[in-house]
Amino acid sequence: MRPSNRAPNELRPVRFTRHYTKYAEGSVLTEFGDTKVLCNVSAEERVPRFLKGTGQGWITAEYGMLPRATGTRSNREAAQGRQGGRTMEIQRLIGRSLRAIVDLSALGELTLTVDCDVIQADGGTRTAAITGCYVALIDAVNNLMKKSILIHNPIHGQLASVSVGIYKGIPILDLDYREDSSAETDMNVVMNESGAFIEIQGTAEGHAFRMNELYTMLDLAKNGIETLITKQSQALLR
Amino acid sequence: MRPSNRAPNELRPVRFTRHYTKYAEGSVLTEFGDTKVLCNVSAEERVPRFLKGTGQGWITAEYGMLPRATGTRSNREAAQGRQGGRTMEIQRLIGRSLRAIVDLSALGELTLTVDCDVIQADGGTRTAAITGCYVALIDAVNNLMKKSILIHNPIHGQLASVSVGIYKGIPILDLDYREDSSAETDMNVVMNESGAFIEIQGTAEGHAFRMNELYTMLDLAKNGIETLITKQSQALLR
Amino acid sequence: MRPSNRAPNELRPVRFTRHYTKYAEGSVLTEFGDTKVLCNVSAEERVPRFLKGTGQGWITAEYGMLPRATGTRSNREAAQGRQGGRTMEIQRLIGRSLRAIVDLSALGELTLTVDCDVIQADGGTRTAAITGCYVALIDAVNNLMKKSILIHNPIHGQLASVSVGIYKGIPILDLDYREDSSAETDMNVVMNESGAFIEIQGTAEGHAFRMNELYTMLDLAKNGIETLITKQSQALLR
Amino acid sequence: MRPSNRAPNELRPVRFTRHYTKYAEGSVLTEFGDTKVLCNVSAEERVPRFLKGTGQGWITAEYGMLPRATGTRSNREAAQGRQGGRTMEIQRLIGRSLRAIVDLSALGELTLTVDCDVIQADGGTRTAAITGCYVALIDAVNNLMKKSILIHNPIHGQLASVSVGIYKGIPILDLDYREDSSAETDMNVVMNESGAFIEIQGTAEGHAFRMNELYTMLDLAKNGIETLITKQSQALLR
Amino acid sequence: MRPSNRAPNELRPVRFTRHYTKYAEGSVLTEFGDTKVLCNVSAEERVPRFLKGTGQGWITAEYGMLPRATGTRSNREAAQGRQGGRTMEIQRLIGRSLRAIVDLSALGELTLTVDCDVIQADGGTRTAAITGCYVALIDAVNNLMKKSILIHNPIHGQLASVSVGIYKGIPILDLDYREDSSAETDMNVVMNESGAFIEIQGTAEGHAFRMNELYTMLDLAKNGIETLITKQSQALLR
Amino acid sequence: MRPSNRAPNELRPVRFTRHYTKYAEGSVLTEFGDTKVLCNVSAEERVPRFLKGTGQGWITAEYGMLPRATGTRSNREAAQGRQGGRTMEIQRLIGRSLRAIVDLSALGELTLTVDCDVIQADGGTRTAAITGCYVALIDAVNNLMKKSILIHNPIHGQLASVSVGIYKGIPILDLDYREDSSAETDMNVVMNESGAFIEIQGTAEGHAFRMNELYTMLDLAKNGIETLITKQSQALLR
Repeated sequence: MRPSNRAPNELRPVRFTRHYTKYAEGSVLTEFGDTKVLCNVSAEERVPRFLKGTGQGWITAEYGMLPRATGTRSNREAAQGRQGGRTMEIQRLIGRSLRAIVDLSALGELTLTVDCDVIQADGGTRTAAITGCYVALIDAVNNLMKKSILIHNPIHGQLASVSVGIYKGIPILDLDYREDSSAETDMNVVMNESGAFIEIQGTAEGHAFRMNELYTMLDLAKNGIETLITKQSQALLR
Repeated sequence: MRPSNRAPNELRPVRFTRHYTKYAEGSVLTEFGDTKVLCNVSAEERVPRFLKGTGQGWITAEYGMLPRATGTRSNREAAQGRQGGRTMEIQRLIGRSLRAIVDLSALGELTLTVDCDVIQADGGTRTAAITGCYVALIDAVNNLMKKSILIHNPIHGQLASVSVGIYKGIPILDLDYREDSSAETDMNVVMNESGAFIEIQGTAEGHAFRMNELYTMLDLAKNGIETLITKQSQALLR
Repeated sequence: MRPSNRAPNELRPVRFTRHYTKYAEGSVLTEFGDTKVLCNVSAEERVPRFLKGTGQGWITAEYGMLPRATGTRSNREAAQGRQGGRTMEIQRLIGRSLRAIVDLSALGELTLTVDCDVIQADGGTRTAAITGCYVALIDAVNNLMKKSILIHNPIHGQLASVSVGIYKGIPILDLDYREDSSAETDMNVVMNESGAFIEIQGTAEGHAFRMNELYTMLDLAKNGIETLITKQSQALLR
Repeated sequence: MRPSNRAPNELRPVRFTRHYTKYAEGSVLTEFGDTKVLCNVSAEERVPRFLKGTGQGWITAEYGMLPRATGTRSNREAAQGRQGGRTMEIQRLIGRSLRAIVDLSALGELTLTVDCDVIQADGGTRTAAITGCYVALIDAVNNLMKKSILIHNPIHGQLASVSVGIYKGIPILDLDYREDSSAETDMNVVMNESGAFIEIQGTAEGHAFRMNELYTMLDLAKNGIETLITKQSQALLR
Repeated sequence: MRPSNRAPNELRPVRFTRHYTKYAEGSVLTEFGDTKVLCNVSAEERVPRFLKGTGQGWITAEYGMLPRATGTRSNREAAQGRQGGRTMEIQRLIGRSLRAIVDLSALGELTLTVDCDVIQADGGTRTAAITGCYVALIDAVNNLMKKSILIHNPIHGQLASVSVGIYKGIPILDLDYREDSSAETDMNVVMNESGAFIEIQGTAEGHAFRMNELYTMLDLAKNGIETLITKQSQALLR
Repeated sequence: MRPSNRAPNELRPVRFTRHYTKYAEGSVLTEFGDTKVLCNVSAEERVPRFLKGTGQGWITAEYGMLPRATGTRSNREAAQGRQGGRTMEIQRLIGRSLRAIVDLSALGELTLTVDCDVIQADGGTRTAAITGCYVALIDAVNNLMKKSILIHNPIHGQLASVSVGIYKGIPILDLDYREDSSAETDMNVVMNESGAFIEIQGTAEGHAFRMNELYTMLDLAKNGIETLITKQSQALLR
């Protein structure tokens, strides 16, 4: 039924390539099938103005797509002179999600910037980004602790993200582009390691969805995220 | 328990002042307590490039806050030279929600732009905006049909929106600013007249929220939206 | 003769609604007939760089029109990425005029920003803005003195503004949009309470105007402004 | 009394250097004392969108200051990414004034752009610009008629501009920078060849000015402009 | 002597990974040692305005660096709202170089955009980009000819690029970051397959360089480019 | 053979008009034939952030063209909201070249900004700018030393710049616009007073150029620059 022949509750092959670039404190190429997002964590000894002098740090995210990450070339935002609404929306979501598992006081006056750059897009770039950022963040924190830039580990939870939706009337997990572009409903879920919600964003594309459809989708998401969290932990052991 | 002394499932006083300005095809000042949003609908005989020649119309939203709509003055986005991420996120949400109840083919090559300008903000500006836009949209469509600019009514549903959240451990409906700024969870829900979801966006601000908390919040939202839909219909009868 | 049936020297109904919004130090909805401008005064404990350390304060104005304040929708300046020339011209005029009646040394290192947002435009938005700003400024100053943020009252004069023009050969006072758009001459005058000029800006739209026409227009303006100043004082007594 | 030792009603030496650059249809370096403004007229066979298909042309002005035209270097507007309010205000004034003496229908669908670039500023750059633009415009029109790009001469009047002000209590003509920066009142007047007003913009910098002071200043301006108009005509004869 | 222990005339290991992403008409990850640049070619059936109706096509380049491609994070140009001078300079160089080997008439009204995005930077990103673009361009053209979008092969030459410089007094080939940042002279050379110059850009960073130093550097470049051209051809055979 | 009837190795008439404007620390109108560039040096007691506290100064350049410096009017970059790639490229070249002859430590925490504004363009604006900047810089430094703002002369070399190219198969010196626009090769060379290279930028416009053509062009450049350096010195003696 699915263009990819996956079962409704089947994730795409997931891969985390750690240490993908050599400079970033944490650098993970995250693949959800053909979706490839590079997640780089950078640490800088500065904080935004509203935190100066508070002893507290900050973590924020930026998101970008290479112009030809998609089937038709999109304009380069740097050349356009501004980031589009979709970009803004996604990077705000990623940053907010990550802050939910980080103790900003334990960071000290340090800013962690997580750059999520989409090399190739095939649906689910924001969920792949969030899921990969966790791995990159752990690598970055370990790095910074080894160098004594961080004394306490500020990460107090684990999180992953996946999309769910209703496609041809059937709830499915981890939509690829072909599914996403014709789904009736599209929802992105971010959960922590104990199955609680950090973020949930659902949109009816075709018809409005009912409470029971929501429940079914959330169950799919919960199981998918459990698997992703296991895969993150395995990747971090290698 | 609530700073406003409202019961957990109690909406703020809601008011729709129709025909608030004289030029717009539909113009409604929407009040949710001290939150005041002016919703103006403008019709223009043009469509975005990707729709040219398709016979189909478009509906989009723009959102702005007067600089002193809030307790401390925020910079004017026009002077800054760009709209912030929050503004983008909100206006995309409003536009997407309204498109869910409009048949774009029935519009013909007409664009409806809904301007939501916040005169005074006390929490819930986006939900007030969406709820008021419905009323303004009905007025605009009736106007355009009376002038034979529209032949068929393109509105095929009704929608309203409200926020829910968890405040001091208790799920509450329609958060005002004091509640919003210290809530552990904040969720905006858009539903149609038959209680189905058009959009759901929830964020854990403090701790991640569990499935049962989600269900309780969604029930609160459902009841609140039913009331709002009744109030919209009453306002349109006057 | 006038589309509005007013006598040549007749102002439109003028109304000042004080305390229009709840946060601003001074907040006045100013109406000149169907022209409605919200004037909000905000006080901030900062000054522009060129005044730092001088002990002197600043007062400045910003002006904006809601997109559908006019008969046809104009683009939102925030979305355009810049303020137009007309906006710049008007906000510079308002700021300059207000500075003429304020003793910046008595302000201390405080900035007063006056936001003039046009809810509905029917000609004369800048003159309504200036006239309403005076009322909002007085409210703001009283507020700040009550809170001991200001010790000395920095306002040393009163001012109001009105437009005059030549319409179908006849000098008239306080042009509305229909008059303004076909006037041969259009002039905005700002005067203080003793009938002296703070600002005068006149433009020949059709034919160049002669010295005697100028004198007649200035007489009209003088009388109009006297009335406006009385109305301001009455509004402040309520 | 004046820093320059001029009599109150004395203009600075005025010079028009025609054909200052070799490409522009009209090119005049205009000097009012040490103020030097290059006025270049360019003709292009296009009109703004709102005039397309009307058979009518357009004339517009742009204004700029070289960064070191003044005593201290100001930032380059191109590098800043936007034109300041003062620039906008001035170029709108110049364009409006020139349109008052041009029959746009006689232009055909042609746009004349007048670039006024200040090489050196010593007060009165906008009045020098307007006065020089007239000479450049005549040269441009003659050029275009010689090449049969224009059939009818669209110029139906002559105009010049000068500043007047009150300096140390005395009304003076054509203020230089030292006078301008400490004048109590500053007024720019644009008049045509029969002494009628095209534009008048006066600002009280120190105290508000009275009606009789206005009259005296306008008389000074009228005489100054008569002289400038004679000098323009002489320059055009050479 | 070189930090990398390379001989003065030794290139870094060079690798071209073709078909790196799946959507672009040509997609090559180009590696010069640790410098990694993704070169994606996109074909679009449009031309810039100045070519409309000429039957001629266009080829242009855009360049970007991921924020953490370097040792310290640089700001995202899309977030800054503009491309920096270095970016502009490089993308102009790449586009100009490629146009030197493409017959724009044979393209028809087609635009080829070459996106060069630096994943990791270790000196020589522009030379790696140009060299890799050739490979991506050949792939793209073959693709387009297979699909009959192109009838004639518009590529009439081959080109590659390398940097040379003087480091600690010795002319060296293909500088990496450590060499580049302390080189006395830095030169980028683009040559075609017969050893003729397409572009040469040299800068004295420390002391000015003499004619004989220039000659030695150009010889190094010539030999390096010959090798690169062989490697390109080999990569295209695979 | 050359449109200008010059011999292949013949410069255009060169003129340096010192003290062209009255405010700048150094101000030189530089003419290479019909190319006229105003070079103004401004000194400011500030340095860019990366130099704060280092005791070192900075020298930078900005470049602009008046809109009608050329045969057809180009858009004003300030109105466009950004500087184009060509502008950026040129001003970076000028700044880099000047820094090669200035000892930034001897400057102290002072910034010299060199504004190069093209009044009229007929090819070679960047080479005229660089050549004229040297003269303006000497004037500025002498000025600053006279005022004891500078204690030590930071200029430790002399430099000039000229273009060379291949036109109709023949290497020529100092291309004017007609030559430049149809040259097969175009090269800009910056050399110091001992004939060593500071910058060399060559582009094949038509066919790629061979090593021997390069040598011939560089010889032409060397001789041209020697002459320019003599003329600079003569101008500084006057």
